[in-house]
Amino acid sequence: MKIIIDTLGGDYSPDEMIKGAITAVNLIEDVEIILTGDKAYIENFLAEFGYKGGKISIIDAPEEISCNESPTMAIRQKKNSSLVVGLDTLKANDDIVGMISTGSTGAVLAGGLFRVGRMKNVLRPALSPLLPNKKGGKTLLIDCGANVDSKPEYLAQFAVMGSAYMESMFGIEKPRVALVNVGVEDKKGNDLTHAAFDLIKNIKEVNFVGNMEARDALSGDYDVLVCDGFVGNVLLKSTEGAVTFVTSSLKESIMTSGPIAKLGGLFIKKPLKKLKQRINYTSVGGSVFVGIDKILVKSHGSSKAETIFSCVAQVKNVYESGFIDKMREKLKIFDKESENNG
Amino acid sequence: MKIIIDTLGGDYSPDEMIKGAITAVNLIEDVEIILTGDKAYIENFLAEFGYKGGKISIIDAPEEISCNESPTMAIRQKKNSSLVVGLDTLKANDDIVGMISTGSTGAVLAGGLFRVGRMKNVLRPALSPLLPNKKGGKTLLIDCGANVDSKPEYLAQFAVMGSAYMESMFGIEKPRVALVNVGVEDKKGNDLTHAAFDLIKNIKEVNFVGNMEARDALSGDYDVLVCDGFVGNVLLKSTEGAVTFVTSSLKESIMTSGPIAKLGGLFIKKPLKKLKQRINYTSVGGSVFVGIDKILVKSHGSSKAETIFSCVAQVKNVYESGFIDKMREKLKIFDKESENNG
Repeated sequence: MKIIIDTLGGDYSPDEMIKGAITAVNLIEDVEIILTGDKAYIENFLAEFGYKGGKISIIDAPEEISCNESPTMAIRQKKNSSLVVGLDTLKANDDIVGMISTGSTGAVLAGGLFRVGRMKNVLRPALSPLLPNKKGGKTLLIDCGANVDSKPEYLAQFAVMGSAYMESMFGIEKPRVALVNVGVEDKKGNDLTHAAFDLIKNIKEVNFVGNMEARDALSGDYDVLVCDGFVGNVLLKSTEGAVTFVTSSLKESIMTSGPIAKLGGLFIKKPLKKLKQRINYTSVGGSVFVGIDKILVKSHGSSKAETIFSCVAQVKNVYESGFIDKMREKLKIFDKESENNG
Repeated sequence: MKIIIDTLGGDYSPDEMIKGAITAVNLIEDVEIILTGDKAYIENFLAEFGYKGGKISIIDAPEEISCNESPTMAIRQKKNSSLVVGLDTLKANDDIVGMISTGSTGAVLAGGLFRVGRMKNVLRPALSPLLPNKKGGKTLLIDCGANVDSKPEYLAQFAVMGSAYMESMFGIEKPRVALVNVGVEDKKGNDLTHAAFDLIKNIKEVNFVGNMEARDALSGDYDVLVCDGFVGNVLLKSTEGAVTFVTSSLKESIMTSGPIAKLGGLFIKKPLKKLKQRINYTSVGGSVFVGIDKILVKSHGSSKAETIFSCVAQVKNVYESGFIDKMREKLKIFDKESENNG
């Protein structure tokens, strides 16, 4: 099983990507990694690291796409970038199952769309992270930023694609799909959610449980949270910000509450570490760009080797779960529509 | 200074509202409270409580508006409800400065709009909670749910009204106003934020610092966060949900990590309490419905006496800060527009 890692574009590029690749091939059986980036640099790094396993190959593509560039322009113009070369290689080779990038989200999305392409019937692919939840499971958020100004039809497809993801990845039989809204009542919401509600409730293949409020995103009462990408982005980042706020405030509070509290702080190091692991996004991997023809994972820009390793495991799991076939099968319900729409 | 408290419609109505009123008149000088609700019940409650201070009066309005009713229908039909009678009394009397309700958000907003009315030039009043931030201050979120499907012009006014609020309430000279978006770059966002960005940046009375991401909502780097009500609602509730998730996960983690961790848990009780106070919304009071002609505070449905007391203090502070006059002054910049628009 071959997986591509784009070594450029991240905050810790390329060193942490290369280290992540080494860890992955050492720990995960049957995985081969193809690195795209500055070949001379990578070869040198591998040599210094003493890696001789033969399960890592390199494609020279030293151009880097930064977060400050226009994504579509960059994808079009930087044909020798590690991202574009990676995506083209992914598309052209049946034995390469997926790719991981820590680069500019916009560029990864534009690249996935234009170089790899959408699955049949997909109106808009969506970026879908897994959130940890109170019940110890995972909840899929779809979309978290690939599509702003979504149409109701996109959200209806997100419901179908999200269901397929949770079914194949976690064996959940009828994933509970909810629409992110300002209240749980059926009539709540804005123009978009009103229209999306009516569409989703009529898709018999989706186990639609209705509207939900963002305060219950991590409750574990839902498997799939459907929303426009702007809304999903706000939901995800608010959650991130609040988690940071609470943990840093707790530390500060402990450090300024006298010696007993400080001792207490030492005593709860173990549970704090457990907590961190639980709410740590890096252990989940990255966000899958759902709806394109191959498995493409966008990992956080600040990803280090550990996260890259998790992403490789994630690509392997998604692939072995039969996600792509499940998606193609599920998307057939839109066959008629796409014929009607030309 | 007279302030109305709607005793019905909340989870702990009317007992906790009455207790809150008693606390308020006992602890805050110069405040008189008018309670709207079931007069016989309230009189009985006050007598049993032994309250004889003479600073609480009652208007009999025993009808209750529930969260399950259509807000506009309820406001129109339930003329003898504690909410409608309260709002009408608020509007009709110059010596009554504000009102507090824990009832249905939709009904409070509809009632504020239709019974009290908008300030001159205001397109859409907005619901504006204060969030605690990392720097120990407060950040205003405007709007958190009064308006979904906002137009860019609404957001531009939110920027002006939010500035007026933070200026008068906290004496901040040039409140830093940011637009909630999916990225900090100027060109980021959806159709609404693109248009709103251009409008706000051209209002010279607003200290516009550009786009911000939801993960920095609690950073303290901004005084006013401007957004559509759907987005603000998701931001606020995601934050609430994440805070609950982290604190409950921490407790669980401590309880399942052995005796030393449990001891640590005891030792950090004091800092945990400090933390709770810091992130406790009830100590801030409720959300002001900014843009109507009087001070109207919507407090959480689950508010108890302590929160009601905080809300009374909040109304007093908002009133004494000269907020209403400051708003009227600031809104004059829209004079020409409203003349042009008829």
